[in-house]
Amino acid sequence: MWLRVGCELTFDIEVPTPFILMLRPRSGAQQWVERDEYKISPNVPIFEYADDYGNLSQRLVAPPGRFSIHTTADVKIDDYVTVNPGAPFIEIQHLPNTLLSYLLPSRYCESDRFNDMANNITANQLPGYDQVAAIENWLRNTISFIPGSSDFPISAIEVNNKQMGVCRDLAHLGIALCRSLSIPARMVVGYLYNLNPMDMHAWFEAYVGGSWYTFDATQTDPKGGYVAIGYGHDAADVAVFNQFGPAVHPINQIVSVERIEG
Amino acid sequence: MWLRVGCELTFDIEVPTPFILMLRPRSGAQQWVERDEYKISPNVPIFEYADDYGNLSQRLVAPPGRFSIHTTADVKIDDYVTVNPGAPFIEIQHLPNTLLSYLLPSRYCESDRFNDMANNITANQLPGYDQVAAIENWLRNTISFIPGSSDFPISAIEVNNKQMGVCRDLAHLGIALCRSLSIPARMVVGYLYNLNPMDMHAWFEAYVGGSWYTFDATQTDPKGGYVAIGYGHDAADVAVFNQFGPAVHPINQIVSVERIEG
Amino acid sequence: MWLRVGCELTFDIEVPTPFILMLRPRSGAQQWVERDEYKISPNVPIFEYADDYGNLSQRLVAPPGRFSIHTTADVKIDDYVTVNPGAPFIEIQHLPNTLLSYLLPSRYCESDRFNDMANNITANQLPGYDQVAAIENWLRNTISFIPGSSDFPISAIEVNNKQMGVCRDLAHLGIALCRSLSIPARMVVGYLYNLNPMDMHAWFEAYVGGSWYTFDATQTDPKGGYVAIGYGHDAADVAVFNQFGPAVHPINQIVSVERIEG
Amino acid sequence: MWLRVGCELTFDIEVPTPFILMLRPRSGAQQWVERDEYKISPNVPIFEYADDYGNLSQRLVAPPGRFSIHTTADVKIDDYVTVNPGAPFIEIQHLPNTLLSYLLPSRYCESDRFNDMANNITANQLPGYDQVAAIENWLRNTISFIPGSSDFPISAIEVNNKQMGVCRDLAHLGIALCRSLSIPARMVVGYLYNLNPMDMHAWFEAYVGGSWYTFDATQTDPKGGYVAIGYGHDAADVAVFNQFGPAVHPINQIVSVERIEG
Repeated sequence: MWLRVGCELTFDIEVPTPFILMLRPRSGAQQWVERDEYKISPNVPIFEYADDYGNLSQRLVAPPGRFSIHTTADVKIDDYVTVNPGAPFIEIQHLPNTLLSYLLPSRYCESDRFNDMANNITANQLPGYDQVAAIENWLRNTISFIPGSSDFPISAIEVNNKQMGVCRDLAHLGIALCRSLSIPARMVVGYLYNLNPMDMHAWFEAYVGGSWYTFDATQTDPKGGYVAIGYGHDAADVAVFNQFGPAVHPINQIVSVERIEG
Repeated sequence: MWLRVGCELTFDIEVPTPFILMLRPRSGAQQWVERDEYKISPNVPIFEYADDYGNLSQRLVAPPGRFSIHTTADVKIDDYVTVNPGAPFIEIQHLPNTLLSYLLPSRYCESDRFNDMANNITANQLPGYDQVAAIENWLRNTISFIPGSSDFPISAIEVNNKQMGVCRDLAHLGIALCRSLSIPARMVVGYLYNLNPMDMHAWFEAYVGGSWYTFDATQTDPKGGYVAIGYGHDAADVAVFNQFGPAVHPINQIVSVERIEG
Repeated sequence: MWLRVGCELTFDIEVPTPFILMLRPRSGAQQWVERDEYKISPNVPIFEYADDYGNLSQRLVAPPGRFSIHTTADVKIDDYVTVNPGAPFIEIQHLPNTLLSYLLPSRYCESDRFNDMANNITANQLPGYDQVAAIENWLRNTISFIPGSSDFPISAIEVNNKQMGVCRDLAHLGIALCRSLSIPARMVVGYLYNLNPMDMHAWFEAYVGGSWYTFDATQTDPKGGYVAIGYGHDAADVAVFNQFGPAVHPINQIVSVERIEG
Repeated sequence: MWLRVGCELTFDIEVPTPFILMLRPRSGAQQWVERDEYKISPNVPIFEYADDYGNLSQRLVAPPGRFSIHTTADVKIDDYVTVNPGAPFIEIQHLPNTLLSYLLPSRYCESDRFNDMANNITANQLPGYDQVAAIENWLRNTISFIPGSSDFPISAIEVNNKQMGVCRDLAHLGIALCRSLSIPARMVVGYLYNLNPMDMHAWFEAYVGGSWYTFDATQTDPKGGYVAIGYGHDAADVAVFNQFGPAVHPINQIVSVERIEG
């Protein structure tokens, strides 16, 4: 499937404000970016680099006044998300070195505090994919998905206390539960076709049976349409924008995902 | 100065237990390891790799029964820790790409929640080294350093609530305060000469004036004698050991640091 | 200055042919890609990755029949290439670790065989930038630049024997001469505004005085207009395309560089 | 099997001479270093880093006068080298991204010039392991292995012309032949138990059937006893020492490998 994704962000800036943005989807094993465009106004110097995860990040200092960013990309992705019930748990000693850090707790995923809860949720499940599917299902049934209910990231413990959250919150709790079972899990931010209401999206991936699989408790069924912009341990790694100095908030954020011919 | 450092860890293992250890100091810009030795008993297969930070990590599965690790190294380090009052704050836009992640909150350093407190502690300080020195001093005078008071890592918020902690706890709070001021900060674990009581140690580094500087609120004066084993965002990245499955605790941990002739 | 660069490659393929391409300029410290497009026909699966140098590479298997690739990008670059006469030679012990491999001989730059010649060419020059400028000047005056005179890479020794070559050949000899003086040097491929005749281009960079500087013996004066696609030790690392199996040659290659409004 | 390996190098230095050394075996998937020691005399500053391949390298400036290096290590390795006749050729499109550069020509392995010869040598062999075994066998029967016959690296073309060489030379020709068949191949330097005469050693690895396999045309049979110090594309990447400025040669080089109890 081919998607045209886009994001428009507008800020009113009062003092020169350093930004680190993550708004350019990258071609990789999962998706091919045929065309992309990244415009800023005014046209200040902008520098791109790949972060520790390989995500493309953009650095700039926004000048006082109206500042806007407009990105768009045409991306080819799989029609369907792969599901693989029964894919086995990979024992720690057989995980690749590069995945071990995805077992550790992180800023918004205090997996060191969720072991009992994860065992309860996944009781009677086969170790591996089925445990993660049980976690996803539990999130879907238990934590109310309320888009727009939160402005800044909160942690898995806080999400669990509130029993509600945005997509990012559900992903954080899902990741914490997976890791507490020694299943590597990571956060993904990006776009989702037909997301309602349309916005930037966040979901999570778990590593079982030798591959990363997509999980998303905000959707009722697994389906295709995911375009990734960033991968990380949690939202601290993959903010669409980090901004330094006095806080500024977007006065406008328009996200669009439409299906196109390839 | 030349130091001979060593650590002996003993466990009683009930079921085969995967371990990831970080017990081998590495030669680098700050220290030279002339000799090192790393023995395990029984002699099961062991695999070493460099983690995302370049730290040497060792993987193994400990078999049931008594399991012990014995490491030692002869290391050449600087006689003194460099202090540099007045070293300036580096503006975000001038930080190297590779340091930007040290501005972000992490598992045990919720820097996104400490901005007001950090501003209070560093009021009237020149931005940069002097701010960090003020934070270190505030920690020294405010948070009681009580070795052995905690078995597992707690976060900066929790440390601040308890107003006491082990070396790791003071470092976590120091890191969170630095990052909340947009100063890159990281955790270091390793050995310290003349530490009392002798144990593995943790301290933190802040990046100001174009270099990483060492800070340690558990000591009254800056002095030399630090041998690093691991660098990371916080204790989640640099555990001396991570162990999976049913919890096992060392039945014995002997740390030694002695001065030797080079 | 803003440039719109583009490349169109067409092949007649007889058997399924694996390709590794390097045709997507990347944003970085030296250039900003505001827009880019990368089309292949027919639309077979294509996978992008960053190679050891961070260059974007694309993998695909071209099916039998007509196969074409069409890329274009809008890129912002500096108006001028920086020249810095007098910039000093950096002694080996002060070079960053990551640059040391650019002192070593490589496939097409047998720097281990050019020391006497380099000393002659640079006699009486200050160590550093002035040596490289003397090498560039010597190449310009000695080795005939004859576009289209060679289909495949030859090495610095071979270029020196022939006393003529394409842009790639002059760069190889320049790099070999620099490295033989212990000056780090690397190859760049990409586009050059106003190149005549228009084609993909190759030049070299040398590291003196703490920075990489651009040198190009095919041009009479330093000027701006360079858009980089790939960096490497020599042409072996930065082929616009590598193809495996029975040799295929482009039946058509159209390169364009035009100036646009930003 | 456990081996104690060691190398002693002595130089007479006339002017301060920068060195880059590669003399510390590293623990990894193939070997475990239980103990190692690295002494220099006089005790000048020395800095270690991991090169682009992960090899441990040591930088120093040797002062005028007698300069010596003494290294030793106790290493656990497999008793046998794995042989796997029939292991299949991996098609380009299925090779991991990180291995693709091992298909390219390099300084001493001009694989772009050996395709016909490699086809002749491997005629009638199954693509993959059997081709490499045929190359190894051809080298063993054709190129005279004459230890000590060469002081500096020569390239595969030169080795083929001379029809004789040291271990490094045979490895270079083997690598060039493999790569010309699109089989990834790399150089290894290190120690070999029972090598006669004892010295540092070089051999090569080829990637077939999803793994790297060891080949060594200097030995009549595959056997264990290899301790790796460095991996690279060819000898340019893995010199035991690189030295800059006026050439100095070791006045003494003593290599030892003995079997020990673990």
